[in-house]
Amino acid sequence: MRTLLLAATLVALAGMPASANDQALLKDARDYFKPIPSIVPAVKDNAVTREKVELGKMLFFDPRVSASHLISCNTCHNLSMGGDDNLETSIGHGWAKGPRNAPTVLNAVFNKAQFWDGRAADLKAQAKGPIQAGVEMNNTPKVVEETLRSIPAYVTKFKTAFPNQTQPVTFDNLAMAIEAFEATLITPASRFDQFLEGNVTALNATEKEGLRLFMDKGCVACHQGVNLGGEEYYPFGVVEKPGATILPEKDRGRFEVTKTADADYVFRAGPLRNIALTAPYFHSGKVWDLKQAVAVMATSQLGAKLTDKEIDAITAFLVSLTGEQPRVELPILPISTTETPMPK
Amino acid sequence: MRTLLLAATLVALAGMPASANDQALLKDARDYFKPIPSIVPAVKDNAVTREKVELGKMLFFDPRVSASHLISCNTCHNLSMGGDDNLETSIGHGWAKGPRNAPTVLNAVFNKAQFWDGRAADLKAQAKGPIQAGVEMNNTPKVVEETLRSIPAYVTKFKTAFPNQTQPVTFDNLAMAIEAFEATLITPASRFDQFLEGNVTALNATEKEGLRLFMDKGCVACHQGVNLGGEEYYPFGVVEKPGATILPEKDRGRFEVTKTADADYVFRAGPLRNIALTAPYFHSGKVWDLKQAVAVMATSQLGAKLTDKEIDAITAFLVSLTGEQPRVELPILPISTTETPMPK
Repeated sequence: MRTLLLAATLVALAGMPASANDQALLKDARDYFKPIPSIVPAVKDNAVTREKVELGKMLFFDPRVSASHLISCNTCHNLSMGGDDNLETSIGHGWAKGPRNAPTVLNAVFNKAQFWDGRAADLKAQAKGPIQAGVEMNNTPKVVEETLRSIPAYVTKFKTAFPNQTQPVTFDNLAMAIEAFEATLITPASRFDQFLEGNVTALNATEKEGLRLFMDKGCVACHQGVNLGGEEYYPFGVVEKPGATILPEKDRGRFEVTKTADADYVFRAGPLRNIALTAPYFHSGKVWDLKQAVAVMATSQLGAKLTDKEIDAITAFLVSLTGEQPRVELPILPISTTETPMPK
Repeated sequence: MRTLLLAATLVALAGMPASANDQALLKDARDYFKPIPSIVPAVKDNAVTREKVELGKMLFFDPRVSASHLISCNTCHNLSMGGDDNLETSIGHGWAKGPRNAPTVLNAVFNKAQFWDGRAADLKAQAKGPIQAGVEMNNTPKVVEETLRSIPAYVTKFKTAFPNQTQPVTFDNLAMAIEAFEATLITPASRFDQFLEGNVTALNATEKEGLRLFMDKGCVACHQGVNLGGEEYYPFGVVEKPGATILPEKDRGRFEVTKTADADYVFRAGPLRNIALTAPYFHSGKVWDLKQAVAVMATSQLGAKLTDKEIDAITAFLVSLTGEQPRVELPILPISTTETPMPK
C-alpha cells in the first residue's frame, strides 16, 4: 500500500497522469518485447501434430533413451522445476558433472538457437546432443533405435506420428517428436505478458520501475524479443570480465563452435523467461541469487554499478516473467521386451 | 477366435456347461484373492486427506529430498513405468548401485510390510529409508527439514495438511504425507479384478488355465490376498536353492532383520500385481523374463517342473494382473530460497 501511495505521489510530482506514464512504458516495452503466445507456435520443418506431441512426451519422459535406463530428458529439464534441474551443472551418466548449467526447456522453442553456445540450430538438433553426450545419457543413435524398435507400442506410435515412411522409428524422428512436444512447453500469461497485452495494472510500481531500468540501463540491448534473450551472442564481460569462478577460463563459449577469436568467451544471451524458477545462473551455474546475477550483469556487460534499490526493482521485474507452467500428465510408458537392449 | 472355439470344445468335451467351470474357478479364486478396491484405502494411523495427498505428491516428485537434489522418490519408483525403475538394482547417490531390486510403489499400501525383508512396518516407515540410505538419496532428516522449512510454500502446505501442530514441517510428517499420496497409487480394474468381481469373460481360456494352475500347483500358498503376495515371508528356495546368480550368497534377506537362523534367505513373497510392468524380477533383479521367473519359482519353491505350456498359461494369467495405472499430473514445485541448503 505504501508503495502504491509513493508511486502515486511520484507520478503527481512529475505532473503526469498515471496512465500517461504507463502508456509510455507500455509503448517502449512493446518496441523491445513480445508476449508469449497462448497457442503452440509453428515449428520450422516440423508440423506440430497431436500424434507427434503425444509420442514426444513419452520419449521426453522415457529413461530408456539413456544408456543406463535411468536418465530421461525430464531428469535435467524437470517440468516440475521450471524446466531445468536447479543444479550448478547437471549430473549425468556415471554421476559425471556436465560442463554447463542446463538451460530451461520452457519457451526454448522461441530461442534463435539452442545450447549456451548456439551450436544446435533448433530443438530437433538439440535433442540429439544430450542423448549421445558421454557425461549425460551416454547412448548411441543405433542403440536408441534398437530400443524403440523392440517395443511394439512405440513402433505403432512412430507409424502414426510419421505416416507414409517405410521405417519411421529413427533417431531423427525421435528428435522431431521431442521437438514437437517441447514446442508445447510454453508459459503464457505471466504478469509481464498481461502488461504487454495492455493491462497496465498487471505490474506493480516496483516492477514497472524495474522494467523502465531494464530498458534505460541497457539490459534490453541483449535481452529482448519474446524470450528477453536467446537471440544473439555476446561476450560474457563486454566491459569487464567477471572472476574465474563465474566465468571459468577453460570454457571459451562459442569459440569452441566457430574457432574464431571474436567468439572467445561469447555466449548466447540467456533467455529470461521464468528466470526466478531456474537458479543457479549463468553458463557456469555459479550464482544462486537472482539479485547477485543482476549485479554481475550490470558490472560485466554494462559497466554500471546499480544501487541496491535499482537491483531490487529489476529483480522484481524479472520475477514478473514467471508464466503459467505447463500442466503435464505423466505418460504411461510401454514395457520393454526380450529384444530391448539391456541398460548399461 | 480360434482360442475361444478351442475352449468351447474343451468345455464341451468335459461334459460341463462353460458357466459351471467358470463358476468353480471363480469360487476357488475368491477363496484366495481379493480385488483391488476402486477407492483409496484407509491407512492405519494416517487419515488420507486431500491436503496430505497433494503435499505428498509434491514431496514424491521433489529431488531436493535427496542430498544431491537430483533423486526423487519417482526416480526409482517411476509412475510412468509400473512404479519402479525397471533396473536390476537401483542407481543412487554417486551412481551407487543399491543392493536389491526396487519394489513397485503401486498397490504397496496393501502389503503387510515394506521392503523385501519387511523391515518397515508401513509406507510411512518405508519412506524414511531411501532418503537416508547412503546408496540412495544420502540425506539426513535434519537437512530435509531445513530444506522444507526454507521454502515458504512448503511451510504453508504442511500447516494445512497437519493442522494444530506447533511445528508441522517435520521428517515424520513428510513420511506421513508421502504415505498418503502412495495410498492413492492403486491400480484397480485389471482383467483379473473384473473376473473376481464376477465377469467370467474378462479372462480368456489361456489365462483361466493359468489361474487354475496357479492355484492347483501351489503358487497360491505364498501369493494370495489383494496383492497376490506381499503378506508373508518365505525362504527363497523352499525346495531347491536357485544358483548364486539369482540368489546372491551375501544377501541373507530377513536374517539381517531378525538375526535368527530360520530367517536365513527368507524374503517377503513378491506382490504380483502389475508384474508384467516391473521386470527384472526377484530381490536380485537377475531375471528379466517373466516366463523364466515363473519357471524358477516352480523349481525352487514348489519342486515342480512345469511344462512350457503350463508356464505360458501362468504367465498369461500374471499379465492379466496389470491394472489401470494412476493418472498423475506432475506437480509444480515451489522454488528454493537463499536459506535452502545447497545440493551436495
